Amino acid sequence: MTVERTRLILEDLEQTLLQFMRKHKITHDEYRRATDILISTVKAGEESLLYDVFFEAEATDIGNIGTQGSIEAIEGPFYLPDAPRLERPYVLPQRSEEVGDVLFFRGRVTSTDGRPLAGAELDMWQADAEGLYSNIHPGLPAWNLRGRFHTAADGTFEVRTIVPPPYEIPKNGPTGVVLDILGRLFFRPAHLHVKVRHPQYGDLTSQLYFDGGEYLNSDVASAVRDDLVAQLIRCDNPKDLASRGLHKPYFEVRYDFVLVPQQAENLRRTA
Amino acid sequence: MTVERTRLILEDLEQTLLQFMRKHKITHDEYRRATDILISTVKAGEESLLYDVFFEAEATDIGNIGTQGSIEAIEGPFYLPDAPRLERPYVLPQRSEEVGDVLFFRGRVTSTDGRPLAGAELDMWQADAEGLYSNIHPGLPAWNLRGRFHTAADGTFEVRTIVPPPYEIPKNGPTGVVLDILGRLFFRPAHLHVKVRHPQYGDLTSQLYFDGGEYLNSDVASAVRDDLVAQLIRCDNPKDLASRGLHKPYFEVRYDFVLVPQQAENLRRTA
Repeated sequence: MTVERTRLILEDLEQTLLQFMRKHKITHDEYRRATDILISTVKAGEESLLYDVFFEAEATDIGNIGTQGSIEAIEGPFYLPDAPRLERPYVLPQRSEEVGDVLFFRGRVTSTDGRPLAGAELDMWQADAEGLYSNIHPGLPAWNLRGRFHTAADGTFEVRTIVPPPYEIPKNGPTGVVLDILGRLFFRPAHLHVKVRHPQYGDLTSQLYFDGGEYLNSDVASAVRDDLVAQLIRCDNPKDLASRGLHKPYFEVRYDFVLVPQQAENLRRTA
Repeated sequence: MTVERTRLILEDLEQTLLQFMRKHKITHDEYRRATDILISTVKAGEESLLYDVFFEAEATDIGNIGTQGSIEAIEGPFYLPDAPRLERPYVLPQRSEEVGDVLFFRGRVTSTDGRPLAGAELDMWQADAEGLYSNIHPGLPAWNLRGRFHTAADGTFEVRTIVPPPYEIPKNGPTGVVLDILGRLFFRPAHLHVKVRHPQYGDLTSQLYFDGGEYLNSDVASAVRDDLVAQLIRCDNPKDLASRGLHKPYFEVRYDFVLVPQQAENLRRTA
């Protein structure tokens, strides 16, 4: 981002918002109410939540225009670097009696030319059955349902975790006040977060939803895209259960990632 | 502000900013840089400073449209309620060797029908010669150059203070970063802050500038209005000096305030 582009955007943003204020005849009391809310979201620890529910998906869409690889998704506020590196067979760190249906998340990572990518790192994080994220919300073991693992020589991966529930964003803070005025729901559909990275390829931030799940069409963050919705397949075949060593039905979801070689990626970004 | 108006404004703001993002093809990195700055201004203690330098004057102008009284001005971030009540003859609290030229601020408060208003409260605050505000910046006596006093039976008032210098806003924080990118100056012209209030009249927030002063045409907050610029008159007549008990030249500035009766004020605000 050059200084020229930053300046151009800032100057146009200033004029756009001044014009907006004139259009609506915003009074000083109304202006101050707006700045009070913007300040209070930060003081309430909501960080960028208010902005993200309204605008992060749009920025992500813009970045996806013309990509040759898998589309990116919103990161959300709860990603943390340095999650534990897992050993095969991969299982996301969890409590011994972790609540929730067992889920196997499988797929393959390839380059845009179809070549499988070995050693790509997948960095996953998700909510538990109560919608809580470890290292963010209190009461969970450190790094619960967070972990990093790698693709095999043929580009495939599989990790065991649980099916996450829909996620309700905090509704008692300033962001909740704004959403309440707008009459919007506070829910996001159930989702898995994952970043996929490889030294020669771009860092891809994804987020996967489950076909048929609740709130797919009323996501408070307006972030669901068709290409991010995967089939959640219920498996209750006794043979499959036996081969997995499980005693009750489980689920599978499959998603394949296509990464763009780093150089082309950079060319696209700066074009 | 009704819920309907709030909702209308929020929905249009959302659409306006989404349209802005599409127009400029704002990437996720750029979006995140923007939210990072907005968050960091609050964490740096700048409160609404970033918003105020760009937008507060516009909101104030909008509130002034059609007023029959004196125009209002931006409040700025440093007003504090409960300043000391002064006794006549009024002198703003100050150190025994307060640096700066002596200033007598005089004027009259009337109703829109010309009737003088006795007992109107003036609530003043200003920077010292170094541009510092008491109870905000460290190292000053509590309530230095802050005080409340009243108009006499004929609506007149006079208070002794010092001539303030131009005010430089904090330039090392996030707001400074944004202004620096835009190539803007960090100064506001010298000014006196004053609120004028009376039980039967609206609460008026004013801010007075001095004709011929520096930065009148390059105010970082774009808040100078002709009706807020007063003549700063230098007085060195020996007779005047003697009558004031002073031994070196001093300054006078006069400003008359016209207040709108409360009922009409409310009608205007809700129109």
